Amino acid sequence: MKRPQVVNRAATRRAAERRIYGVHPVVEWLRTCPAHVHAVHCDRRAVERVDDLARLARAGGVPLRVIEAEALAALAGHGRHQGVVATTAEFPYVDVAQVAAATPRLVLVADQVQDPQNLGALIRTAAAVDAGAVVIPRDGATAVTPAVEMAAAGGTALVRICRVTNTARALDQLKRTGLWIAALMPRGGTDLYRLDPPERLVLVVGGEAGMRPLVARHCDLAVSIRMWGAVESLNVSVAAAVALYEVRRRWDA
Amino acid sequence: MKRPQVVNRAATRRAAERRIYGVHPVVEWLRTCPAHVHAVHCDRRAVERVDDLARLARAGGVPLRVIEAEALAALAGHGRHQGVVATTAEFPYVDVAQVAAATPRLVLVADQVQDPQNLGALIRTAAAVDAGAVVIPRDGATAVTPAVEMAAAGGTALVRICRVTNTARALDQLKRTGLWIAALMPRGGTDLYRLDPPERLVLVVGGEAGMRPLVARHCDLAVSIRMWGAVESLNVSVAAAVALYEVRRRWDA
Repeated sequence: MKRPQVVNRAATRRAAERRIYGVHPVVEWLRTCPAHVHAVHCDRRAVERVDDLARLARAGGVPLRVIEAEALAALAGHGRHQGVVATTAEFPYVDVAQVAAATPRLVLVADQVQDPQNLGALIRTAAAVDAGAVVIPRDGATAVTPAVEMAAAGGTALVRICRVTNTARALDQLKRTGLWIAALMPRGGTDLYRLDPPERLVLVVGGEAGMRPLVARHCDLAVSIRMWGAVESLNVSVAAAVALYEVRRRWDA
Repeated sequence: MKRPQVVNRAATRRAAERRIYGVHPVVEWLRTCPAHVHAVHCDRRAVERVDDLARLARAGGVPLRVIEAEALAALAGHGRHQGVVATTAEFPYVDVAQVAAATPRLVLVADQVQDPQNLGALIRTAAAVDAGAVVIPRDGATAVTPAVEMAAAGGTALVRICRVTNTARALDQLKRTGLWIAALMPRGGTDLYRLDPPERLVLVVGGEAGMRPLVARHCDLAVSIRMWGAVESLNVSVAAAVALYEVRRRWDA
């Protein structure tokens, strides 16, 4: 095979660019960090229907291009884009050290969540309870893909996300700043409603296949959610939400 | 076109049969209502790994057939079956009148939820809080498909599900039995944590596109979940879980 002599640099740059889609993720990135967004592409309907889109793009100095439906679908790679596709920089993961230095009160660690909808919902809930960060592992888990950003409905732009090689080590880093580490387990832990929540907390949830024993061993306590019916456990994003909201409620009470 | 003279009745019956897949849905149906299951097909690994499968099938008089991986995937229509596929009767929806007659304490109405994962998680949570029923509309919503049953992780066999032509009329039927109807809204309702929950409650959640005004008008009160962060709303299955669990907690307190 002959190697091409002339490289199309613009094409290479476009290929390296990330594309995110959906009204909420694009609007939220424009609002919180326009520098992250290279350009916004949308159809005529979206630019008319989504109030803030043109204003935020203008305010952030981000080019806004109204294009045809087919070009938009080609850019997104599919049709589930709600009329808005943005090209952006790589996802801006944050170091655990940075999170630790900010001494957050609440952190969510999602160990090996593989389903983009689950991770998206987890990030969205973490943003709703104003968590300081969400920590995910590099291996055996989905990264923050465009599908995750869509499911997070803008949450990915509102909460810091760390992607770590070693979840147990990340827990130890957070522990050293005075955070308590609570593992959310399907059974066997302290009843969530009988827990006296520590002043500062890391909630650790396992993925769809449960929590890895090594990760569980690095936790200070285990918490479980009551089941009134015969079902064995809750969906991971549902369980995390029930626990995070209960902790927030108790802190405010 | 010529009409075939001889009908292959066995093939017709097979085509009309439902196929559900996944360990939890199949095991839960075998446990709670084996008459619903015509036959269980699984691979050798599943029959060895899933303790209760062979025992429950035997106890329920349901044929269990160990088949090859390719045949299993062909039966399921895809590979996400966890080694277990069952042929079953049509999904056994229940009438609202039957639910009303049983005077349940807690009912979940999911208006126009289109995503199977969301509806599955909602049903799973409804089973976890021991709701008397889940009501879904016939139009503009996903039915209880095999994907919904998979996401519900057995919950579809544990909670009664009504599929109604007219959601507002179903609310009125339930209201006449003394149930209070609470709409869960992204904003504008009574703060969930300031609500004094009625003794018997129907929680109504909108679909991914929100709640229809006609449905909202048939509710007695509106409830909203607090947001500590800048995200606008929660995923529908997450929001319903936070509200259902809070009501259950208050009832037990």
